Formats: sequence, C-alpha cells, structure tokens
Amino acid sequence: MQTLNVALGDRAYPIHIGRSLLGRADLILPHLRTRRVAIVTNDTVGPLYLEALSTALAQAGVGVSAVSLPDGEAYKDWETLNRIFDMLLAERCERSTTLIALGGGVVGDMGGFAAACYQRGMPFIQVPTTLLAQVDSSVGGKTAINHPLGKNMIGAFYQPRLVLADIDTLATLPDRELSAGLAEVIKYGLIRDPEFLAWLEQNLERLVARDADALAYAIERSCRNKAEVVAADETEQGERALLNLGHTFGHAIETGLGYGEWLHGEAVAAGTMMAAELSRRLGWLGEAEVARVGALFERARLPVWGPLLGAERYLELMAHDKKVEAGRLRLVLLRELGRAVIHGDAQQTDIAAAIEARCR
Amino acid sequence: MQTLNVALGDRAYPIHIGRSLLGRADLILPHLRTRRVAIVTNDTVGPLYLEALSTALAQAGVGVSAVSLPDGEAYKDWETLNRIFDMLLAERCERSTTLIALGGGVVGDMGGFAAACYQRGMPFIQVPTTLLAQVDSSVGGKTAINHPLGKNMIGAFYQPRLVLADIDTLATLPDRELSAGLAEVIKYGLIRDPEFLAWLEQNLERLVARDADALAYAIERSCRNKAEVVAADETEQGERALLNLGHTFGHAIETGLGYGEWLHGEAVAAGTMMAAELSRRLGWLGEAEVARVGALFERARLPVWGPLLGAERYLELMAHDKKVEAGRLRLVLLRELGRAVIHGDAQQTDIAAAIEARCR
Repeated sequence: MQTLNVALGDRAYPIHIGRSLLGRADLILPHLRTRRVAIVTNDTVGPLYLEALSTALAQAGVGVSAVSLPDGEAYKDWETLNRIFDMLLAERCERSTTLIALGGGVVGDMGGFAAACYQRGMPFIQVPTTLLAQVDSSVGGKTAINHPLGKNMIGAFYQPRLVLADIDTLATLPDRELSAGLAEVIKYGLIRDPEFLAWLEQNLERLVARDADALAYAIERSCRNKAEVVAADETEQGERALLNLGHTFGHAIETGLGYGEWLHGEAVAAGTMMAAELSRRLGWLGEAEVARVGALFERARLPVWGPLLGAERYLELMAHDKKVEAGRLRLVLLRELGRAVIHGDAQQTDIAAAIEARCR
Repeated sequence: MQTLNVALGDRAYPIHIGRSLLGRADLILPHLRTRRVAIVTNDTVGPLYLEALSTALAQAGVGVSAVSLPDGEAYKDWETLNRIFDMLLAERCERSTTLIALGGGVVGDMGGFAAACYQRGMPFIQVPTTLLAQVDSSVGGKTAINHPLGKNMIGAFYQPRLVLADIDTLATLPDRELSAGLAEVIKYGLIRDPEFLAWLEQNLERLVARDADALAYAIERSCRNKAEVVAADETEQGERALLNLGHTFGHAIETGLGYGEWLHGEAVAAGTMMAAELSRRLGWLGEAEVARVGALFERARLPVWGPLLGAERYLELMAHDKKVEAGRLRLVLLRELGRAVIHGDAQQTDIAAAIEARCR
C-alpha cells in the first residue's frame, strides 16, 4: 500500500492506494467521528463490493446503512441525490454519521455533495472503484450534480477525510470505463508532468492490459499530481483550472449529446484534441505533437474526434462553463506537451475552427 | 446607520442597520466581485422593493438579473430552489456574479443556499426585509431548504459578504410577521442577555407599535448578540446551538403541521414555552418565571401553546433534529432567565410531559 497526503492544513487527508483494501476497516476507523456510517453506491458496484465493505465495518462494531443509486451520468441529478437524503433521514443518520461513497465518479460526486449538504455537512470518505475516480474525481473535494443546461453546475467544494483506492476493484471494470479513466491519466502528463507523459508513451499497452504494477504506478503518480495542485489551489482561483484540460469542450459534448451518451473520459479525450488543435493554431504545438497526443488516446481506445454538433452549438454550450469570466471564455490550452496554460484571448473564430477540425 | 461586524477572519463582514438603505448602491458596490448581480426575491417583497434596489444598482453601472419566487415556507424546497439555478444559467451568471437575497428568512435561506451551490459557490449579499430576517436569519451564514421529513435538513454554512438591513422595509410588514420576528428578538434576551430581557419587558408595546427608535435598538442589540455567538462558533460545534432555544420543539410543529401553516417565529414561541416548562420540571425555573416568558410572548401576540399533535408525534419529529447525537436528543433549556444551556440528559417521559403541558 502506498499513502499520499493532500496537504490542506487542518483538513489534510490521506490517499491509500493498494490491493485488498476494501476489507481493511482498520484504515477507515480512525477517520470516523462516530461508529456509524451510511454507504452510497450504485446498482453495478453494490452487488460486487458493498458486502465486503459493510461486513468489515460491521465486524468492527460500526452501524451501517446503505443506499444504491441507478448507474450512470444520466442519474447525476437532484432526483437521484434526493434518494440519498431520503435514506439518511429514514435511517436517522446524524450529522456526525460518516457518508462513504463506494463507486465511480458519479457516486463520488453525488455522495460528496449529499455529505456537504446533509444537516449542513457530515464527514465523508471516498472509496473509488473506477480508474477515473481513483486517479481524479475522488481526490480534491469537487462535488456536484448536473443541471440540464450545464454539467457539474450545482455543487460544493467539500473535502473527504480519507480516500481508499483498492486497485483490485479495477478487475471488474468494463474496458470502456478503463479507457475513460486513462483519459484523465494522460491529462496529468500533458498538463504538468512531461516525464510521466514519456512513461505513458512507453507503457500505455501495459495499462490497457491491466498490468497491476503499471496501474499502481499510474494511479499513484496521477494522485500525486492531483494532490499537489489541490493543495496549492483548493477552490480553483488559479492553477487548479489546468486540471480541466479538454473539459470545457468535453462538457459541451456531454451536455449536447445528453448526459450518459459518452463517458466523461471519452468526452475529455475528444475535447483535449480540440484544445490541442487550438494550441496548434496559436503556434504552440506542431502538427506532429498534436498527432502524438492523438496517438496516445487511440492506443487507450479513446475517441479523438468530437460528435458533429456544429461549432455554434459547441460555443453556446461552452458559454456556461464555470471558467467564463466577464463573458469571456477561458480555455486550458497546451503551451507545449507537458505544460498547460489558461488562455482568455482566443478568438471565437479560431475556437470554432478548432472544433470543426476535430469533429467528424 | 449603525454598523456591526461579524468577526470571521478573512470572511468577516459588516451588518449595516438603518433607514433608507435600499437605494444606497454605494454600500453594496465595495462588496461585489464584478459589476454583475442576480437578485432573488419573492412575489410579495419584489413588487414593493425590487425596483428601488435594482435601479440604484443599474445607475451605478451594475448588470442586474432577477427572479421572484412564490412567497412562504411551503416553497422552501428543491423545486423552487431550482428556479434560481434556472435563472442564473439562463442569464449566463458567472461564479463571480453576486447573488443578492431581497426578502425574509425563506428568501435568504434559499438565496444563500443557491449561492453556496451555484458553480460551487458565488458571492452573496443579504438584504433582509422582515424583522425575523433582520435580527436572525440573515446573519451567520446558515442556509438551507426543507425536506418533507425535516426542516432545514439540506443546506450549507455559507457566509454573506454584507448584510444590509433597511428598517424602512418593516413598514409594509404584516402584523403577524412582525410578531414572528419578535419571537427571535425575545430569544436573545432569554438565552444570554438578561439586561436586554429587562428592556424588552419594559418596551415590548413600543416594538409592537413599530416605534422606529425601539425597533432600531432591538435589531442592533439582537444582531450584536448573534454576531458574537457566530464569531465564536461558526459551524455550531458548541455555543451556537443555544440560538436554537425553542427550535427543536418548534421545528416539530412546523414539520408536523406542514410547512407554512405556522410562521417560524410562532412555532419558536410555542416551542420556547415547552423548553421553559421542561426547565421548570428540572427545577431551573419557577412557575412565575415561566409565566413571565409567556407574558412576553403574549404581549408580542405570539402563541404560547403548541398544536395538539400528541407527544408521541412531537418526539418522533424531534428525533430528526440536527442536534441529536448518538441517538440522544440535545435540548436547549433555560438554566435561568437570561442563560440557556444544552442539556442531553432529559428523560423522554419528562420531555413528553412538558410537551403535553404546553399543548391545547
């Protein structure tokens, strides 16, 4: 087991990464306020892993309640969130009860937001079971639900007290979900870690083949990058926005197609290609470098072309982005491979041209 | 104009109390992040005061959007909250836009919660227009909506950047709402300010008659008490819970009858009588003192008896209280007039007897 620390002062917390961690109640107990937890999971993950986790906790003398949500981004809405509140109230959970999110990014985002809001805030633990959640969404305290007009529009910054990433849970992950997670892994290489990018270019097939050592390394390295950025800029006043490479374009794809059509990581991959293409048009990347990025995504079996929504529609959807400031779109672009920047001066025509060039 | 300060370090903020403040854009401008605001009001307050506020801001060069919600506690729910999000997204409000809540406690609670959640947090200003909001709910950062199983169950601690209390708005307040606000005014005297309690016993009729000087004094004194408690215990780990005198019983009345039947302040008055009665049974108050409390509420035209829901039903509803810890009800009781305490050892039978004694 490896342990990283997210350095946030009196709200600092550990990330444990390793094998066979789900049954390790001893890792969870020190982070509970009382011996009472409420587990939020979904209908795919629950049947696989809920019993292992809840049995271990029950044997340690912890009272366990649980709720299972329907699986998928399409359910990341208020109605489904309310099922968590219904369970918490029906089971008489208190504000000292700890909410544990057991699942992927959607479960973590919704469980975290429910924990942030229930009785104005209850303790919260992330047990991510997808690659995407283990390398990205479970770390850093961003929680949210979607609004029909924009992804992750309603939410909170709310840090967990512990992230417990059991790599063994990736064994049951569908190929498509594994690939989606790799999009965020590749992202860290592109935005701030050229050495990791080089490692990925050499080892991507090992990750696709689920080589345990390669996965453990990639998860640990990704979490380290994420933890550093979050510690420096918790509420995204600056640097943290760089983690959104490809996300402004990607959110437009997700919202435009309807939540759940594309996986988040798939939209991020295609969106990153648009960001790379725009970076090329600004003279920052060469054609060969854009091709290198595309090759990496293709080796990860990710889409490198966006759906044909029309550039107008993309721009309309992107205007709701949280990084918009004084009406101006602020995009994460690549100054070079391994170094992202925030750019607020791109012309609408250039953005539209980059989108058109990367759709088909 | 009087100005108090809520001392919360880098999130400290001023409370301005005085006459003709609604048109004073100069008091608001220093607290905006950009020259863009979204005003949340309701269908009763909006027609009276929205134009004065929005015109003043527009003349100062501020872009103004607005949404009006239906009036009343019955609408303090997710569906109505979502109307705020719809407006914010339709009007392309950014996370740097400032949300201004113009109205009473419900508008402030919902506007504040919307501001806490929209794009994970936007700046927020309170412009309370009821006595209850001016003396209590606009100060201290508690925001929430109701759940069918419990009042204020879903919410956030989210501090405003400014509270602007224009006493002139009380001129249009219905008598019943004025009385409801007086319940919270009397509360400060009962829990921690015996000198103020004595002043109230001498001056209550002046408040009921809306004497401007008396109201200004009572509001300023109430806000001073509230600001001191909030600064010492922002997230209610301890002392802040004392502000909930009568609220555990009162919330049971509100939830049990259906939100909106009784005004919050009315439920707090009847609930405080139950707390006083239980304090008497514990030997802390004499009969004459309980009668003094009751007389004060009656002079404020407030109910001193709860509705006949049955003690069982009260206890069931009270079990959802946010102060419940390890299954045990923690009640705010009166050790003496002017000094409240948290008490976790009351017997269910004693609590039930106190409820029965104060219902009819």
